[in-house]
Amino acid sequence: MAYESIPLEAFKETLEFNIELSSVALGGEVVKVSDEFFAEAFHLLKVEPAPSLKGQFGPNGALYSGWETRRHNPSYDWCIIKLGTLGTITGFDIDTTHFNGNEAPEVSVDAILDTSLAANDLDNATWAEILPRVPLGPSQRHLFKITETERVNFVRLNMYPDGGIARFRVYGNVAAVQPDSPEEVFDLAHVFAGGRVTFISDQHFGVGGNLILPGRGKDMGDGWETKRSRHKGHKDWVVIKLGATGHLRAVEIDTAHFKGNFPESCELHALYSEDEIPDSDAADWTRILSPVKLGPHRRHFFALEADASIVYTHVKLTIYPDGGIKRIRVHGT
Amino acid sequence: MAYESIPLEAFKETLEFNIELSSVALGGEVVKVSDEFFAEAFHLLKVEPAPSLKGQFGPNGALYSGWETRRHNPSYDWCIIKLGTLGTITGFDIDTTHFNGNEAPEVSVDAILDTSLAANDLDNATWAEILPRVPLGPSQRHLFKITETERVNFVRLNMYPDGGIARFRVYGNVAAVQPDSPEEVFDLAHVFAGGRVTFISDQHFGVGGNLILPGRGKDMGDGWETKRSRHKGHKDWVVIKLGATGHLRAVEIDTAHFKGNFPESCELHALYSEDEIPDSDAADWTRILSPVKLGPHRRHFFALEADASIVYTHVKLTIYPDGGIKRIRVHGT
Amino acid sequence: MAYESIPLEAFKETLEFNIELSSVALGGEVVKVSDEFFAEAFHLLKVEPAPSLKGQFGPNGALYSGWETRRHNPSYDWCIIKLGTLGTITGFDIDTTHFNGNEAPEVSVDAILDTSLAANDLDNATWAEILPRVPLGPSQRHLFKITETERVNFVRLNMYPDGGIARFRVYGNVAAVQPDSPEEVFDLAHVFAGGRVTFISDQHFGVGGNLILPGRGKDMGDGWETKRSRHKGHKDWVVIKLGATGHLRAVEIDTAHFKGNFPESCELHALYSEDEIPDSDAADWTRILSPVKLGPHRRHFFALEADASIVYTHVKLTIYPDGGIKRIRVHGT
Repeated sequence: MAYESIPLEAFKETLEFNIELSSVALGGEVVKVSDEFFAEAFHLLKVEPAPSLKGQFGPNGALYSGWETRRHNPSYDWCIIKLGTLGTITGFDIDTTHFNGNEAPEVSVDAILDTSLAANDLDNATWAEILPRVPLGPSQRHLFKITETERVNFVRLNMYPDGGIARFRVYGNVAAVQPDSPEEVFDLAHVFAGGRVTFISDQHFGVGGNLILPGRGKDMGDGWETKRSRHKGHKDWVVIKLGATGHLRAVEIDTAHFKGNFPESCELHALYSEDEIPDSDAADWTRILSPVKLGPHRRHFFALEADASIVYTHVKLTIYPDGGIKRIRVHGT
Repeated sequence: MAYESIPLEAFKETLEFNIELSSVALGGEVVKVSDEFFAEAFHLLKVEPAPSLKGQFGPNGALYSGWETRRHNPSYDWCIIKLGTLGTITGFDIDTTHFNGNEAPEVSVDAILDTSLAANDLDNATWAEILPRVPLGPSQRHLFKITETERVNFVRLNMYPDGGIARFRVYGNVAAVQPDSPEEVFDLAHVFAGGRVTFISDQHFGVGGNLILPGRGKDMGDGWETKRSRHKGHKDWVVIKLGATGHLRAVEIDTAHFKGNFPESCELHALYSEDEIPDSDAADWTRILSPVKLGPHRRHFFALEADASIVYTHVKLTIYPDGGIKRIRVHGT
Repeated sequence: MAYESIPLEAFKETLEFNIELSSVALGGEVVKVSDEFFAEAFHLLKVEPAPSLKGQFGPNGALYSGWETRRHNPSYDWCIIKLGTLGTITGFDIDTTHFNGNEAPEVSVDAILDTSLAANDLDNATWAEILPRVPLGPSQRHLFKITETERVNFVRLNMYPDGGIARFRVYGNVAAVQPDSPEEVFDLAHVFAGGRVTFISDQHFGVGGNLILPGRGKDMGDGWETKRSRHKGHKDWVVIKLGATGHLRAVEIDTAHFKGNFPESCELHALYSEDEIPDSDAADWTRILSPVKLGPHRRHFFALEADASIVYTHVKLTIYPDGGIKRIRVHGT
C-alpha cells in the first residue's frame, strides 16, 4: 500500500484532526499477543506519553513502559488490537521512546474487518497489509500517513524479529454508529456517532476533544479546561461537528471532578452549514439553550429550545467566563 | 501610598536587612481567609521556596504549594495574616511561582493595628491600604518597596478577582518588645526585642539570622552553620546589634541538632558603638566571655564577665574553629 | 613514593585494565575506622557512583553517600580496608562527589601485608606509605598512579584532619590464588586466579569484566549483556586471558537473571599466545566447545573438547546472536 513518512512538525496538518481509534480512552484493547515477556502490550495504547523507568527492575529484568518481547525470535512478534470502534485508518504514530539498543528494528501493520462470533481468536483470518515493513530507530516517534483504508475493527502490529515499542497510535475516521430508526433519540455529538471537535478557543488545562469521549473519565485531566480569564465579559467556546444532520432535543452537561472550577454558566448555539469547519463567530448561529447556571461535579440535563422542524450540522458550546467541562451529550434524532 | 517595584537583583540593598515579619519562623499565621478551595493559605508563609507539585492531584484537583481560590469570584478574595510580632512595614515579596494560567492577576495589601479582644474576627475593622492594586505575572517573584508604615500587627492580602499565589513575604522592622522595669532581665538579642544580625563571616550551611529566632527549631537546617575550615587557627563570627543598649549578665548557647559539628569552643565580645554596623575586627571590642568548650545537641548557660557598670550596643559571637549553633540568648537589663 | 596525578581522560590507558581490588564486588570490606559519625565508611567501596542525597536528613544530620567524620579532629581520621584479594597496587580513584564545603582537604594512603591471626585489629602494625599527603578539591574525582607496590592485603586511607569522601577505588593486579598441586582442578578464568578480560565486542547493557567475578550477583545489571542484534548471523564475544597456562576440562556458563534475554547458543575457543592481548579474530583459535543451546536463569555445565595434551593461555566465549551471561567458569589444571 501507499504510505508516506511524516515529520513530527507536520502532525498538526495531517493527523491531528483524525481520531485516535486505538486509544484506551475509546475502548481500544490488546486482544492477543505473541509474547510480552519483558513489558506488557497494554502499555501501547495508553493516553500519556511513555515515562522513563530507568533503574527500576521487575522479576524479568529492567522495566519499560511499552511492549517488549523476548530476544532471539526466529520468526517475528505480533500484537492484535481491537479498535475502540469500527473505522477507516489514515495513519500511525509508532513511538520507541526510551528503547535504545532494544528497540524493534522493523514493523509492519495489518488490518481486518471481523464481526463473526465463532472465529477462534482471529487465528485463521486473512489479514490485509496496510503499512509495509518499515525500519524504526531508537527512542523516537515515527509518523506514517497511508491511503485511507476500508472500514476495519482489528489491527495487527508486527515487529521483526522482536524488541520493544513504547506507544502505538492508530489514527483515522470513525464509522459512525447511529440508530436505524429516524425516530430513535441518540447523542449526535458522541465520537462513536461520528462527532468531531472542530474549534477550541482555549485548552490550557485539558483538551477539547475529551468532551465527546465515552464514559465519565477519572479526574480533572480528562475533560476540557480553559485558563482563568482575566477580563470582564470573557467567554470560551468549542464547536462540534455532529455525526449526523439532525433535530436537537436535549443536552447533558457533565462537570464531573470540576468542583471549584466549573463554569459559572453556559449556553448552546446550533448551525446548519455545508462546511466541515464553519466560522465560529458568524452571525447565523441560532441559540438553542439560553444561559443556565452550572454546579460543581455533577450531571446537568436541559431541554433545548430548538425549533423541532429545523435540522442542524454543528453545535457551539459557550462557557462563561471560563472553567472545566467533562462531557457534553447532544440528544436528538 | 507611594510604592516602587524593585528588580530581584536589588533585593540585597533594599530588603535583605529587614525582618520577614510574616514568616512562620516568627509565628506569623493566617487568621481568616475568604476561600482556599484549591490550596490552603497557610502555605503563603512558609520559609522554603514553593516546590513544583506537577502531576499530583488531591480531592479538589491539581495540587499547588500556595494559596489558590475557586474560580469566578464576583468580588475578590482576601487573606488576613497576623504578623509574628508588631512592626513597621517596608516592602513585600509576592511570588506566583508554578501558577501559570491560574495566577492571581492583581493584588493589593491593607494593614491595621488592632489589640482589642472583642473584635469579631476583624470584620468591622477599618483597614488602611499600604500597597495599591498592582498587576502580577505568571510564575515569578514580584518585589515592592513602600514608605515605612506605622506599627501594625495584621495585614490583608487581596487578590482580584481570584487565582493563586505561592508565597507572600512581608518585610519591615520589629517594634521591639522589652520590659517596663529597667531591673527586669531579658534577652537583648532576640528578634522580638529588636535584635538584628549585622555581620556574618560565613553561612555556607545555615544563615546567621536564624540565631535570634524564637523557639529551638527542628533540624540542622534552621540554625547557623559554617563550612569545615581548612587552616590552623580558623574562626567564624557573627555580630548582633542588640535591641537595646544594656548591661549584659548571662548568655545561653544552644547547639541543638548539631551532634557532630558543634564548634569546639566559643567566646563573646561586646561593644558600645553609635554605628548600626560597626567594624567587626576593630580593637575596641571587650571580651565578656573567655573561650569555653561546647558540647553536642544541648543548651549551655554561662555567666558573663562584663563590667556591670558599662552598657553595650553590640555583641560578637566567635566560634573555634567552625561549626553550627542553633540559637544565642543574651540576657541583660 | 613516586606518584603522578592523572587527568580523567587518561583513565582508560592507565587504570582501566587494572582490577579494582577494593570493590565490594571482589569482597573488599572496611575493617576498622576512626570515626564515621555523619556517613558510614562502607559506602566508599560501592560499585555505583555516589548519588546525590540532597535534602535528606538522618538522626545525625544531612545524609551523604560516602564516608564523613565529625568536625574538629585534633589529629586525623583513618579507615582500614581489607582488599578483596591479595594484590599489587598501581593507582587510586579518590572521589569527593557531592561533598562541597565539607570535603576532606588532604589524604594519604598506607598499605601492609598481614596474614597473622592474633594481631589485635592491626593497631600495632607497621604501615608503609604508598601515596603521600595530597590535596583534594570539592565534589570531584582525583586519579593517582603510583609505582607498582609489593603484594599487600590491607590499605589505610587517612584524611587530614577530617571531612568527607564519596568513593575510594584501589586499582592494581591480583596476586593469583592457584592450587599447589598441578593435578588439582581450578577455575583458570576467575579474577582471583589472575584471570582478566582483554577484549569485549559490545557491552551496552552490562560490562564484560563481570563475567569472572566471585559469586552469582544480584540482578541483570551485574553480568555481561550486549545489544539486541539486528542482522542475520550476528555474534558477540569476549576474550579472557587465563590466570595460568593450563589444560582445559570443563566450563560452567551461568545465565542467572537473564530470563528472556539469554543467548540462544554459545561456543568456546582457546589459544596459546605469548601476547597479553591476542587478535580475537585470528585463524589460530581452536574450538573447544561446539555450539550448544542455552536456557534461561540457570547454570549450565559442559565437558570441553580440548586436547588434554595441549596448554592454552586465552579463551574466547562467543554468543549467538547476542544477550546476557552472568558468569563463566573455565575449569582445568
